[in-house]
Amino acid sequence: MKRLHGGVEGGGTSSNVVLIAEDGTVVAKGDGPPTNHWLVGVDRCLSAINEMVEEAKKQAGSDPRVPLKSLGMSLSGGEQEEAVAKLVQQLEDRYPNLSESYHISNDAIGGIATATDRGGIVLISGTGSNCKLVNGDGSVVGCGGWGHLLGDEGSAYWISHLAIKTVFDATDSLRPAPHDTSLVQKAMYDYFQIPDRMALLTHFYRSFEKSKIAGFCRVLATVAHDGDALSRSVFRRAGAELARHVLAVMPVADKELFNGVHGLPIVCVGAVWNSWDLLKDGFLEVMMGAEEQRAVGKQQTRFSLMKLKQPSAVGAASLGARHVGYELPMQYADNVAIFYTHGDKR
Amino acid sequence: MKRLHGGVEGGGTSSNVVLIAEDGTVVAKGDGPPTNHWLVGVDRCLSAINEMVEEAKKQAGSDPRVPLKSLGMSLSGGEQEEAVAKLVQQLEDRYPNLSESYHISNDAIGGIATATDRGGIVLISGTGSNCKLVNGDGSVVGCGGWGHLLGDEGSAYWISHLAIKTVFDATDSLRPAPHDTSLVQKAMYDYFQIPDRMALLTHFYRSFEKSKIAGFCRVLATVAHDGDALSRSVFRRAGAELARHVLAVMPVADKELFNGVHGLPIVCVGAVWNSWDLLKDGFLEVMMGAEEQRAVGKQQTRFSLMKLKQPSAVGAASLGARHVGYELPMQYADNVAIFYTHGDKR
Repeated sequence: MKRLHGGVEGGGTSSNVVLIAEDGTVVAKGDGPPTNHWLVGVDRCLSAINEMVEEAKKQAGSDPRVPLKSLGMSLSGGEQEEAVAKLVQQLEDRYPNLSESYHISNDAIGGIATATDRGGIVLISGTGSNCKLVNGDGSVVGCGGWGHLLGDEGSAYWISHLAIKTVFDATDSLRPAPHDTSLVQKAMYDYFQIPDRMALLTHFYRSFEKSKIAGFCRVLATVAHDGDALSRSVFRRAGAELARHVLAVMPVADKELFNGVHGLPIVCVGAVWNSWDLLKDGFLEVMMGAEEQRAVGKQQTRFSLMKLKQPSAVGAASLGARHVGYELPMQYADNVAIFYTHGDKR
Repeated sequence: MKRLHGGVEGGGTSSNVVLIAEDGTVVAKGDGPPTNHWLVGVDRCLSAINEMVEEAKKQAGSDPRVPLKSLGMSLSGGEQEEAVAKLVQQLEDRYPNLSESYHISNDAIGGIATATDRGGIVLISGTGSNCKLVNGDGSVVGCGGWGHLLGDEGSAYWISHLAIKTVFDATDSLRPAPHDTSLVQKAMYDYFQIPDRMALLTHFYRSFEKSKIAGFCRVLATVAHDGDALSRSVFRRAGAELARHVLAVMPVADKELFNGVHGLPIVCVGAVWNSWDLLKDGFLEVMMGAEEQRAVGKQQTRFSLMKLKQPSAVGAASLGARHVGYELPMQYADNVAIFYTHGDKR
């Protein structure tokens, strides 16, 4: 009987699972509903995880009653120690056949573990946003990741919210918009299927769904690609915000992290990165501005932005396996695709 | 049997009720829980209103089974027509003995109706914020009032949130704070009884209570009065935001509204106005800046800030009575206290 290590990547909009054999082969992959326990509640989070893993076991031809050797979970919202301990306890109590061991990290840690075992920065911009620097010794320094009320700058929710708020404030004459708001307003009415601003309150208060609001970002990307100046400026600002997250943690990065062929690896996770062309100007403006201000050598500013070609669930599985003392073989180079490099190779 | 007109002022933190006889005498006053239906839900909102009025009827020596002649309600969150129609329908269905007639307006309209029947501006800064200009013909132009996710600038929630967010961003190195954050951070840990920032997430997400977060504003006012620069700057910015609400609606005010002895009446409602000394510099800076930019005569910038000496429930009662064709006698001059006047008397 082959022993399987599982990995779950849980986000605010959707989740996915992988099962990996001891030789590193991915034997099952699957999708599932959101599993951010702050957003959907603990019950829905845990039952979704259990169902996804059960399905994956069947797909792998494995008996669902046989526990995994380990289950690593990389969850947005998964970083408060006390909350994490409770989640693990409840998984053990409710689903004794799920896994022999559990390991929960936040989504950033799972992302970096998919790309490298040497450290780097993970910069998430999905439904929410988060940034973590992982140093070579495994220590972690974060910026952001506090959810839509206290953070999430540069995320899909933040982009949607900023566009909506700009329309509200311009209509109210509270603050002039930097560009004409009519296309964004029309897109907003269409997306939420509402006749006026008042009707939007239901979506923000009575039946708040972060993923629904964040989903408007996809529409805005289309509007921006059609040339709308307001939505383009919102994405540009999002790029700037994301760069600020990088600059916040960069000063505490080990020097060695800059020394690889591609400079400091910045692993970009989340669907907002599909709009890199819209984020780019704002992102680079902030990064370059900081470079000019600093009196450090060029190699301290070399970085590469890369996307994952594998879900963060793979990194989560490897962390879960490591938690029980097993090193899953990982082909890190195959897991990433570099889409931007700044600074010359030395 | 005397016929009574009732008024309810409903906010995000508390509510109050008055019963007024046909000669204008207030025959009962009472307090109650929050009745913002967006925040507490429709059920709790309606039962709280019913209970408050029942208590008040008893206090007035009136039979609780005899309906009021009219009940006017001035509710924060009470402006979406469809939602308001539903609230009235449900009050009629559930509480047949409550009142013969209902009238719901948002809290700003109730505020101005307490101060004057000639029109003016109501500028609310309580748990949330809102601004309404009421012209002489009864037409209303608003700015803000969209709740904590889309508005509320300058409110207690906004002040609390800005102070908290400043601490978060400075700690994250995402954005430097304009002043030392240590006193505000300590006050935040004390108020929410938490050991670290992570523990605050429960208060913002798992068990979000807007009034709990807004309540931190009272602590910040104390810290500011003790001389803390950060909290002082937050209140100053709140004052500036509140002034922007006034400037947004001022251009559409009837010229006659400026012609009274005290210039344009700005009725300031909500507990944040108790900290006018902290708001003042920011408020006046924005108002004066706008004055310099405009090419209008001085009389178009004369205004007076006034507080209500009576609850907005009084104005709500008068609107409710008017809704059934009765003009309650009101002593408007006795209902307000002017605390700041700008511009010379002509």
